[in-house]
Amino acid sequence: MKAFVMEELGSVGFADKPEPSPGPTDAILRPTKGLVCTSDVHTVHGAIGERENLTLGHEVVGVVEAVGSEVDHFDAGDRVAVGAITPDWGSDAAQDGHPSQSGQALGGWKFANVKDGIFAELVHVNEADANLAHIPDGVTDEEAAYVTDMMSTGFMAAENADIPMGGTVAVFAQGPVGLMATKGAALQGAATIFAVETVPERQELAREYGADEVIDFDDVDPVEAIMERTDGDGVDAAIEALGNSVSFEQCVAVTKAGGTISNAGYHGEGEYVNLPREEWGVGMAEKTIATGLCPGGRLRLRRLLRLLDEGRVDPTKMTTHEFPFDEVDEAFRLMETKEDGVIKPLVNFE
Amino acid sequence: MKAFVMEELGSVGFADKPEPSPGPTDAILRPTKGLVCTSDVHTVHGAIGERENLTLGHEVVGVVEAVGSEVDHFDAGDRVAVGAITPDWGSDAAQDGHPSQSGQALGGWKFANVKDGIFAELVHVNEADANLAHIPDGVTDEEAAYVTDMMSTGFMAAENADIPMGGTVAVFAQGPVGLMATKGAALQGAATIFAVETVPERQELAREYGADEVIDFDDVDPVEAIMERTDGDGVDAAIEALGNSVSFEQCVAVTKAGGTISNAGYHGEGEYVNLPREEWGVGMAEKTIATGLCPGGRLRLRRLLRLLDEGRVDPTKMTTHEFPFDEVDEAFRLMETKEDGVIKPLVNFE
Amino acid sequence: MKAFVMEELGSVGFADKPEPSPGPTDAILRPTKGLVCTSDVHTVHGAIGERENLTLGHEVVGVVEAVGSEVDHFDAGDRVAVGAITPDWGSDAAQDGHPSQSGQALGGWKFANVKDGIFAELVHVNEADANLAHIPDGVTDEEAAYVTDMMSTGFMAAENADIPMGGTVAVFAQGPVGLMATKGAALQGAATIFAVETVPERQELAREYGADEVIDFDDVDPVEAIMERTDGDGVDAAIEALGNSVSFEQCVAVTKAGGTISNAGYHGEGEYVNLPREEWGVGMAEKTIATGLCPGGRLRLRRLLRLLDEGRVDPTKMTTHEFPFDEVDEAFRLMETKEDGVIKPLVNFE
Amino acid sequence: MKAFVMEELGSVGFADKPEPSPGPTDAILRPTKGLVCTSDVHTVHGAIGERENLTLGHEVVGVVEAVGSEVDHFDAGDRVAVGAITPDWGSDAAQDGHPSQSGQALGGWKFANVKDGIFAELVHVNEADANLAHIPDGVTDEEAAYVTDMMSTGFMAAENADIPMGGTVAVFAQGPVGLMATKGAALQGAATIFAVETVPERQELAREYGADEVIDFDDVDPVEAIMERTDGDGVDAAIEALGNSVSFEQCVAVTKAGGTISNAGYHGEGEYVNLPREEWGVGMAEKTIATGLCPGGRLRLRRLLRLLDEGRVDPTKMTTHEFPFDEVDEAFRLMETKEDGVIKPLVNFE
Repeated sequence: MKAFVMEELGSVGFADKPEPSPGPTDAILRPTKGLVCTSDVHTVHGAIGERENLTLGHEVVGVVEAVGSEVDHFDAGDRVAVGAITPDWGSDAAQDGHPSQSGQALGGWKFANVKDGIFAELVHVNEADANLAHIPDGVTDEEAAYVTDMMSTGFMAAENADIPMGGTVAVFAQGPVGLMATKGAALQGAATIFAVETVPERQELAREYGADEVIDFDDVDPVEAIMERTDGDGVDAAIEALGNSVSFEQCVAVTKAGGTISNAGYHGEGEYVNLPREEWGVGMAEKTIATGLCPGGRLRLRRLLRLLDEGRVDPTKMTTHEFPFDEVDEAFRLMETKEDGVIKPLVNFE
Repeated sequence: MKAFVMEELGSVGFADKPEPSPGPTDAILRPTKGLVCTSDVHTVHGAIGERENLTLGHEVVGVVEAVGSEVDHFDAGDRVAVGAITPDWGSDAAQDGHPSQSGQALGGWKFANVKDGIFAELVHVNEADANLAHIPDGVTDEEAAYVTDMMSTGFMAAENADIPMGGTVAVFAQGPVGLMATKGAALQGAATIFAVETVPERQELAREYGADEVIDFDDVDPVEAIMERTDGDGVDAAIEALGNSVSFEQCVAVTKAGGTISNAGYHGEGEYVNLPREEWGVGMAEKTIATGLCPGGRLRLRRLLRLLDEGRVDPTKMTTHEFPFDEVDEAFRLMETKEDGVIKPLVNFE
Repeated sequence: MKAFVMEELGSVGFADKPEPSPGPTDAILRPTKGLVCTSDVHTVHGAIGERENLTLGHEVVGVVEAVGSEVDHFDAGDRVAVGAITPDWGSDAAQDGHPSQSGQALGGWKFANVKDGIFAELVHVNEADANLAHIPDGVTDEEAAYVTDMMSTGFMAAENADIPMGGTVAVFAQGPVGLMATKGAALQGAATIFAVETVPERQELAREYGADEVIDFDDVDPVEAIMERTDGDGVDAAIEALGNSVSFEQCVAVTKAGGTISNAGYHGEGEYVNLPREEWGVGMAEKTIATGLCPGGRLRLRRLLRLLDEGRVDPTKMTTHEFPFDEVDEAFRLMETKEDGVIKPLVNFE
Repeated sequence: MKAFVMEELGSVGFADKPEPSPGPTDAILRPTKGLVCTSDVHTVHGAIGERENLTLGHEVVGVVEAVGSEVDHFDAGDRVAVGAITPDWGSDAAQDGHPSQSGQALGGWKFANVKDGIFAELVHVNEADANLAHIPDGVTDEEAAYVTDMMSTGFMAAENADIPMGGTVAVFAQGPVGLMATKGAALQGAATIFAVETVPERQELAREYGADEVIDFDDVDPVEAIMERTDGDGVDAAIEALGNSVSFEQCVAVTKAGGTISNAGYHGEGEYVNLPREEWGVGMAEKTIATGLCPGGRLRLRRLLRLLDEGRVDPTKMTTHEFPFDEVDEAFRLMETKEDGVIKPLVNFE
């Protein structure tokens, strides 16, 4: 079958790979819609080390092609979403409430990391009963593709931020995860949301998703701006949605004593991430630092799909481009250059 | 000064009372807008026992008239809201995270309970620095009056319900507290909200505040209806906003194993509240029962006012009637009879 | 193979049953030590309805006899404990943090409920990787048998009680679950533990496990006694370890506003469990009612085994009697009559 | 009156200061026993900037000398403890559950910071009703002195660590706060406690307070040692009780994905505290970093005093030296040099 792969460090292309077959608890999915993620770009450039001939991609919905003998809840022909993260639900970490860390740190992240990803004609899904979810009739495939990672990760950032009803929140960076963190903050009862972003298209979307004020770090120092607009109090919670040591440091600085810094960004560089000593209150100011990796699992997917079904969020505003599967290499290149105001490129498999 | 009082059990009227003066940490408030609450009606009919010549009412905003010598944050002339509940912030219960229970169970409830309420020309406020909040310029007095109890209590019901992002919630009864619980559930990330109510005006408002489905218990059994619409799963959380043993029992029945029953209703009758043994999972189904009394305090008020200032909720849709202070007895009678589709009567002091 | 079964309602005996074989994710266990539980007695008398020829028992340790093709962490010959509750770890409820409720309320409870229990020569274990745990060398089989239910359930009762460091706790009933709740409360930082019990042997053990004061409800009213000894404050948390509506009611009464009632008892009778309206603070005193069913799973078992390995608890003080497997019917009868100061009868399979 | 003061940066001595008098909500305390804290040494050397003629010390018990007009719960002659941290209980931060941060970051820390400390003949206590606690008859003054900071801070470190029942914990440094964190971990249900320490007297005390294994970082690399002893899993929680960037980094490294790093140490140096990127799981491994400042308040003090009264902890093992108040300068010097195996020097005022 045809697959879009990382051939080796720095190089991508289409390849012919053998079709996967399901073990007793697995399923095989035939994709219909997928989304390209910046983290695939990072992967190709070495973020997770060397890989050879690894199928890329992890955000996908489709139709069940086949299921293993022990799968109870899904059958061939079912229209389903699969989480970008597909945990081992019996692992110690999952039993401890951290399924995304199953087996080892970030161990629930399998697609395009420790096994082939989703830009292929067929996709293998482990623990199908636990990692797939049926898509409700009222939800389109495109909408559903957003629950697999962008909504799950962005909303997680807001959930981890422990936002009080009526609280103040700063979201650093308004890429697709940051935009969904902004929307997530609104859905968690935030009153005032500061969105830090410099790209006009993203600034506009941030406002649509609930930001009350956009802070352009090309114009002002975001720490000064946020401290001023909160009368020197700082915010109840700050969300890092970029994976940058500078913006992490700014998050710590703008969070009030007793508040929470919620990190959703992948920190890909440097020996240390900057934890500023004084702004962190010399380790005594009760500023909690929380982190997370995209939650997966049937229950999570079902709940996010329900938000779509009830019309409480429209993630498709983030779809800026569309490509057929045959041109996923173009979509990938676009995500690499971030040209043309791209936020998310949608890939149509059919 | 003029005050509207409970003269004795079952009887209300206007009285002349001495003007209050502030102790070192207190303030005196001159009301501008107040709201009548059903609980005042219950009080007059004996819910909290006998009282004599007690000024009624606990939902009010106004202007500071005078402050005690130790008050730092407020001055005469400030436009402020005061919580219906005015805790003793140094008490053991407040230090334990339960300020509304300061001193004793429900001990933070002072207005029209253990001291004079707010339907008077002047109102005494204890621990003014901690129990008042400035009203932002962008918020009207009428809007602000809703944060003192209705929004604080209704939103608390949703917060205590521990709603997962994308969860399902049932709110039993859509009086003003139930309506704000419905809005609160939406602000806490609920996907599907079932509102149980039979009065058409309240059904309509429920939809405006975020209910996806209204269940009229005159037409259907709400337990059957909710179980059917959740494919037999039940809801993640049920909110009791009535104070009725039957609806409490229904809340327990519709909540899934592992879910939460959040009680906001005042249970005024009977030796026992019905906790149905089987539906409660024989005491082992991990259905948590949470309860609460309206949170007060400057921080709470400020956060709720901020929600108003950012336009995230409009509570004034619940104002169905207006009265001058001279006719608060009419407003009170209306709340007693629940005629004319009344939800909240607003009282204008000026 | 030989098994000790509930033949029908009210009748037990030995039977010959076919040997179980493992599915892909299962294991077969050869028991070495088991414990008889009062709940088996309840089962025989109809607590969970009719059953026919159902093998009894759910507290067991032993040696792995065989494993399915997908089992990674266990091999034939391994010395292991298996939880009394063996959840489906991929289920919605498990993904939601409530594995004991997998599939349905109490759905993780399979042994001697929806499948054969453990009083047999061989025992079938579902999801072996997730539901077994290796027993450390320093822990005996007898000790390990206690983690499967008594320690897991009793400690859960203490964990659910949300005990503050230095808090006050009342534990109602000092059967084996209550005794482990008492020990659990000590391990959760309680300062003062009141144990309510009338049987002298249990009173003495309660003191050994950490009770500071034993309250004999034959001598005094436990509510009065506890309120007096807490200067009228009540306790931070009360634990119900009996499954009785009266003691549940007493738990609500002795818990302070803002405190927690943790229910661990199986409530087997009546349409309603008594929730006393006034003592519950008319539904507004922030007295939370938590419940739970014995947590299972490899991680839980490993953690409890570690407590044994480090010598932080000695549950074998509760072993009052021993029987060979051939005489498990005697052990069962003893548990029924509660004669001879019985707390837990140990069953030796070898 | 006589007071032991920081005269200026780097210089201490006795001074004559005016006697304090109470405002309406305050009390004046006559000390009986105090303890010297390393943080006083840091203060003199500039940790919190310049101070002039500031009375040192913050750990004290004594007898009430006088109370203000609004104080209800205490009278002259009462034997009491006062928290090292004396929050403003009506502040926003206290209302938000972070009393130690009242007013500003670390704002609850007033003694020997923003007002005179406790090494004086008389001590001023703000919000006396909320910040004092009666010492039970069964508790000595020396014992009680330990609740004011060492037990409150050390136990807080364990509480913030979110230790699961039967969990594994590493405590870095076994000074008095670390020793109480070790004891606190045992009181929070930890099974295995690793204590990292190199001083023999502290190693021995660590064992007495519950450490299962002592790791001497002069002999082994603590990260390697802990990873090896946990079979590569790491610990559920790591506690930093030193205030050192290296040990903070080690805490992050030994904590498993999904675990918690609890910081109790005061980080006094450097622009950044080292947050190691890879060990922190690139910001996605769900390793939460919690921090805190000693909790104060009557309720906290009462609960800790109750632990002493019930004999659940004996902090006086940490008293290595005693001095009369006239020789507090000697005690201070000893704390500076850390000679003679000093852990805590006790100061007798009478």
